[in-house]
Amino acid sequence: MSVLRKDPLSYGWVIYPEKPFVPPQPRQAKEAPDGDEPCPFCPGHEFMTPQEISAYRPPNNSTLAAWTVRTVPNLKAVLHIEGKANRRGEGLYDMMNGIGAHEVIIETPEHDARFFDYNQQKIEEVATMWRERAADLSKDSRFRYIQIFRNYGESAGGHLTHPHSQIIALPVVPRVVREEIVHAHEYWMNKERCILCDMLSQDKKSQRVMYENDYFVVFQPYASRSPFETWIAPREHASSFATDSVDLESFAHALRVTLKAIARALGNPAYNLIVHSAPTEVERLFKTPRVKISDLYHWHLEIVPRIKRIAGFEYGTGIFVNPVRPEDAAKYLREILETQNADESVL
Amino acid sequence: MSVLRKDPLSYGWVIYPEKPFVPPQPRQAKEAPDGDEPCPFCPGHEFMTPQEISAYRPPNNSTLAAWTVRTVPNLKAVLHIEGKANRRGEGLYDMMNGIGAHEVIIETPEHDARFFDYNQQKIEEVATMWRERAADLSKDSRFRYIQIFRNYGESAGGHLTHPHSQIIALPVVPRVVREEIVHAHEYWMNKERCILCDMLSQDKKSQRVMYENDYFVVFQPYASRSPFETWIAPREHASSFATDSVDLESFAHALRVTLKAIARALGNPAYNLIVHSAPTEVERLFKTPRVKISDLYHWHLEIVPRIKRIAGFEYGTGIFVNPVRPEDAAKYLREILETQNADESVL
Repeated sequence: MSVLRKDPLSYGWVIYPEKPFVPPQPRQAKEAPDGDEPCPFCPGHEFMTPQEISAYRPPNNSTLAAWTVRTVPNLKAVLHIEGKANRRGEGLYDMMNGIGAHEVIIETPEHDARFFDYNQQKIEEVATMWRERAADLSKDSRFRYIQIFRNYGESAGGHLTHPHSQIIALPVVPRVVREEIVHAHEYWMNKERCILCDMLSQDKKSQRVMYENDYFVVFQPYASRSPFETWIAPREHASSFATDSVDLESFAHALRVTLKAIARALGNPAYNLIVHSAPTEVERLFKTPRVKISDLYHWHLEIVPRIKRIAGFEYGTGIFVNPVRPEDAAKYLREILETQNADESVL
Repeated sequence: MSVLRKDPLSYGWVIYPEKPFVPPQPRQAKEAPDGDEPCPFCPGHEFMTPQEISAYRPPNNSTLAAWTVRTVPNLKAVLHIEGKANRRGEGLYDMMNGIGAHEVIIETPEHDARFFDYNQQKIEEVATMWRERAADLSKDSRFRYIQIFRNYGESAGGHLTHPHSQIIALPVVPRVVREEIVHAHEYWMNKERCILCDMLSQDKKSQRVMYENDYFVVFQPYASRSPFETWIAPREHASSFATDSVDLESFAHALRVTLKAIARALGNPAYNLIVHSAPTEVERLFKTPRVKISDLYHWHLEIVPRIKRIAGFEYGTGIFVNPVRPEDAAKYLREILETQNADESVL
């Protein structure tokens, strides 16, 4: 019989049809084809991007093209840094100016590199840049939420081949995060405990853990919305990816192991990577002044392979139909990991 | 400057980048290719579907293949009618059995027909079947919500060419509808008025109305999530599409005019059509017993052309980036309508 499961963070239900697990067919991501234009993200083409915001260069080489990671404003930014929010009404509706930031993190000078092939050092470097940019943007009191994300492959919304991730600073707390907070708050008022801490403590004894190390747990959530959806969360409670301390070596290792296993399991699929972290200012959402967002929100990273379309039913209801149960995905990924470990000396 | 607008039903923000309106390039929907298999929805192939649930046949012809609209269980149903919900916990998580219904409404015997080409009578017939099936399913006290929807084109999740829509009966109120209700309830507690009634009364004076007749308003909502998103709502407050009275002629005409205009404007695009109607049982969500769902929820039909991918940012935040403001979409569609009226004698 098919079952429904509820995600306690979003309150979204997921339908798991009754189906035996079938190892997935590889679904190679379709990358956007490179046009005739030179790549604006390649070294030597620095003049093609807007003014650099931050970059890492080797200590002994400060030439423009010597960067290893480079952050620039998105040329097609949907939000802009200048101006005031100017919150206002139009009759019963709410609106405001599109202030914020939209940055691109060019992760490597190598045009054809792939995230899942990055070595430990490269992932640490990228994660350091994510944290640095998010921490910097969160200092701006006009911004309420900093979203770090990565779209890989055309069906996940990736438009350029050259490996990059993005950061958007928003003047509002987005709906999805707001709901997670409302539900985490409800739980906290009841138990005075973080809901994700409780989920992790139960999940660690479940069949849904794919990998863990000293500081991080990688797992397939109880009500995963899409096949092979995977979350990475710190074991110890921490609300902000950008400003709480993090063991970067451990984090990078967890991320690397996960992406490699998913790429191997699904044949380098299109995916979205999304970091959910505490908003920078949200306390005014709570009726009780003693509640702190840092107590009840637990940051985590979500990887969502895009191997299934979002159709009318999902869009209209927020209920997802997922043919692969998270236990099956976790088991399959653990098997892949074992082969991987046997294949590689380093890991 | 780009602006953010908030949808008062979902509390979702939408970003409208600063861009002049450019008439859209036609984006012909890619239909799923017909394989070598005979079509299970074509007349004469009735044996290929599960047992018929309902069908309309001319009064003088009751032969099996003489149907004009036909409803059958979905062969790949994600929920099944037999059994009990058996709501249960797994530690802190919630689950239940996948009871429900998943039906396909085969709208016409004509394999190659297209919804936007249906005549008035055909749309009335399809709408009558939608209402009949939804009303029938809502009698089952195990079901909390009846979702009517239509996926057209591969990028909207449409898998079979033969024109059809679907109905899913759910044992839970879906997340998206639940949130609309929570927000409509908040508004009602404040004003003792339906929020969508107030939206319509403001919208009727706006530039976002594309078409209206005696009983229905067709408009582009204030915070439309995707280019040319269009809603159809009854002028007078009514909470249930299935069980409240409706002027079918007026409704079918509004739907026909809308789909024809969108098809002409965008070149027959992929789209999702979703009916949002009051859940069958929801009063237990309210803390105040005197509140009735029928007072505060207003049914409406949403048409969402799928001409833009849902990428990591939208998925992770629920904030959509929409390059076409609803005023511009409405204006463009009104112009199309005028040409259409000039071209056709009937309309």
